[in-house]
Amino acid sequence: MKKPMENLFSDSANKLKVSVIRELLKLTLKPEVISFAGGLPNPDAFPVQQIHEITPGVIGNTNALQYGTTEGVPELRGALKKRMATKNVKCEVENIQITSGSQQALDILGRILLNPNDLILTTCPTYLGAIQAFGFQDPRYELVDMDEHSVIVEDLEARLEDIYKRGDNKRLKFFYVTPTFHNPAGVTIPEKRRKEIMELCNTYDVLIIEDDPYGELRYRGKDQPLLKSLDTEDRVIYLSTFSKILVPGFRIAWMVAPTELVKKFVMAKQAVDLCTTTFTQYIGAEYLNKGHVDQHIEKIKEIYGRKMQIMLQSMAEYFPEEAEYAEPDGGMFVWVRLPEHINTIEIFPQVVEKNVAYVVGSAFYPNGKGLNTMRLNFTHPSDEKIEEGIKRLGNVLHQILEK
Amino acid sequence: MKKPMENLFSDSANKLKVSVIRELLKLTLKPEVISFAGGLPNPDAFPVQQIHEITPGVIGNTNALQYGTTEGVPELRGALKKRMATKNVKCEVENIQITSGSQQALDILGRILLNPNDLILTTCPTYLGAIQAFGFQDPRYELVDMDEHSVIVEDLEARLEDIYKRGDNKRLKFFYVTPTFHNPAGVTIPEKRRKEIMELCNTYDVLIIEDDPYGELRYRGKDQPLLKSLDTEDRVIYLSTFSKILVPGFRIAWMVAPTELVKKFVMAKQAVDLCTTTFTQYIGAEYLNKGHVDQHIEKIKEIYGRKMQIMLQSMAEYFPEEAEYAEPDGGMFVWVRLPEHINTIEIFPQVVEKNVAYVVGSAFYPNGKGLNTMRLNFTHPSDEKIEEGIKRLGNVLHQILEK
Repeated sequence: MKKPMENLFSDSANKLKVSVIRELLKLTLKPEVISFAGGLPNPDAFPVQQIHEITPGVIGNTNALQYGTTEGVPELRGALKKRMATKNVKCEVENIQITSGSQQALDILGRILLNPNDLILTTCPTYLGAIQAFGFQDPRYELVDMDEHSVIVEDLEARLEDIYKRGDNKRLKFFYVTPTFHNPAGVTIPEKRRKEIMELCNTYDVLIIEDDPYGELRYRGKDQPLLKSLDTEDRVIYLSTFSKILVPGFRIAWMVAPTELVKKFVMAKQAVDLCTTTFTQYIGAEYLNKGHVDQHIEKIKEIYGRKMQIMLQSMAEYFPEEAEYAEPDGGMFVWVRLPEHINTIEIFPQVVEKNVAYVVGSAFYPNGKGLNTMRLNFTHPSDEKIEEGIKRLGNVLHQILEK
Repeated sequence: MKKPMENLFSDSANKLKVSVIRELLKLTLKPEVISFAGGLPNPDAFPVQQIHEITPGVIGNTNALQYGTTEGVPELRGALKKRMATKNVKCEVENIQITSGSQQALDILGRILLNPNDLILTTCPTYLGAIQAFGFQDPRYELVDMDEHSVIVEDLEARLEDIYKRGDNKRLKFFYVTPTFHNPAGVTIPEKRRKEIMELCNTYDVLIIEDDPYGELRYRGKDQPLLKSLDTEDRVIYLSTFSKILVPGFRIAWMVAPTELVKKFVMAKQAVDLCTTTFTQYIGAEYLNKGHVDQHIEKIKEIYGRKMQIMLQSMAEYFPEEAEYAEPDGGMFVWVRLPEHINTIEIFPQVVEKNVAYVVGSAFYPNGKGLNTMRLNFTHPSDEKIEEGIKRLGNVLHQILEK
């Protein structure tokens, strides 16, 4: 081309910048670095034997190799309807939409719900992938504070009141929240708060996107009801995924949503990728229908529960007192808050020099705050590396804080 | 929800309407209908045995079950670099981007290249999926006429001159074209015209999207060089897919593009679906690396070539003289033009009543024209059904034209 390529890029493309996190993560690629930065499941938790058993039959099914319907293959939607019923979510097959990972659900929901400058209500911090997906539509954010029990209901109410008072409610499109084992904050909303949140959303007539990738991964304590199971007014869009209970490489996830929204979603998805990989959808359907999933989730919980314990015990031993964190009951992450004067972006090179890494927490703040926070993943590293890595990280944090 | 759901939809969502085609296609779902309406490959052309052989090894590879990089798995990108070299396209692995079907490439290219009201140069008719994908960005179209040898170079030049004369060249983002076995028109650009098109695009500094899903499916005549192989100024974005040479259910496709564009594409794709199904990417890589693909393409060509012959012979026998069509040399479609006073949407119910179906051609016209056209697919129906279906269609067309 004679003209520079950037002259051809759209305004949205020009807003896509090389992310600081991605650049920082490049520093962690050396094999000697113990990385708590990723968000990867552990291959030890992949049901390889079951996949071996299921796959030949799926290859033998012509439908699994052909284009599928945009909504998702009927066998998988049917199996998910049954599974949702076990979580006290009653829905029809028509309410279930298969997506190419939950990331795609977030992207398409952003497209079909958001005009530029529309308002999203979410937690502070919130999931980075959601910020990226919604970012295409140039939204504004209204941020709700969290404590060790996740969403502070009084703050949610104050935000909603304020939005209505200033007449912004017409631009408010939804409340995006990960109620169970929050990414990045690790915290879970208890049942009482869930009911209060539903009441508030009923009162203020707010659509909810309940992102639930980790709900099955509880290593202690009692299951909390899904917001969707408490939804009496068809206002919850529920998202979950096979990435953490089967394998991420299949790229299959699902959404449970009001019929009218699913219809619009399908029209958009058709233009986006025609359909999700049919081959892996059929493997997922068999995995559910053969009853493998619950048995396998027990195995995953055993592995990850142990890893979480090792991380929390190591943190208790090696981390400076000034590092604050809530102990999660499940999921994949521990969220750490350092004293206000510490900037986790600035200290990152110093930390990586000691061959250990985290994700800088500010990436999860749509308002650019949280500079003193970091997210630690405990599912991917080996047990030994978790302990060694936390020791390294604790030591370098001690040094930094003593300066 | 208390407020109607449509109050929450974005402007782009409100523009997504239930398509006439989709509604018409519902009429064709009865088992007794012989449908030429789809665009499906034939399951007889799926390399099931090779997939059986390859898959166990892929399941045994942890990387194939894990999240992959947004760019695509290295093994597949490496294999595609080699394959592109056999088509006289020299590129680096960095120029190759894996996508979730070519549909996703079109969607993301639309996002990163188009602002609302930007101008797309394309053929008339053009690929429906491209119109849908680009539609999110609300573009304008400048349409180039085709004859039995595809793009009329003089018309392309006239369009470009006009665009420049009226100062619209800054809004012109690319020329979108399917040079080989055009969908829907079936026609192929000969080498001489390809060179002239490249010269024109060099002169007017126009980016080209070369969509090549069917290039390998030639049943007669001589291969024509890819536009990308004639590209001396890095202005061609090349798209191709495994959907027609392996199976569509794997949802893997690829793009060869300038480095700077791939970088932007990756940032967008990360927010769209994180990565394409890694599992099927590894199967695709093995399919290429084991050398299965060229052998299997011969088998596909044999099956589809025969089906095309049956369709063309049956059309010669049963179609009324007033139905005009160019005989394709490959691909999946025959494109039919009826007399101007016939509207293929209007006669559709009458045709389906005779248990045969086509796709209405006007769907492929961004300007709403082409009301007298239809597209016929010859790859999916059985040999017997092709003959029987064309006979039925010919008979009903005779009846309609004789009225």
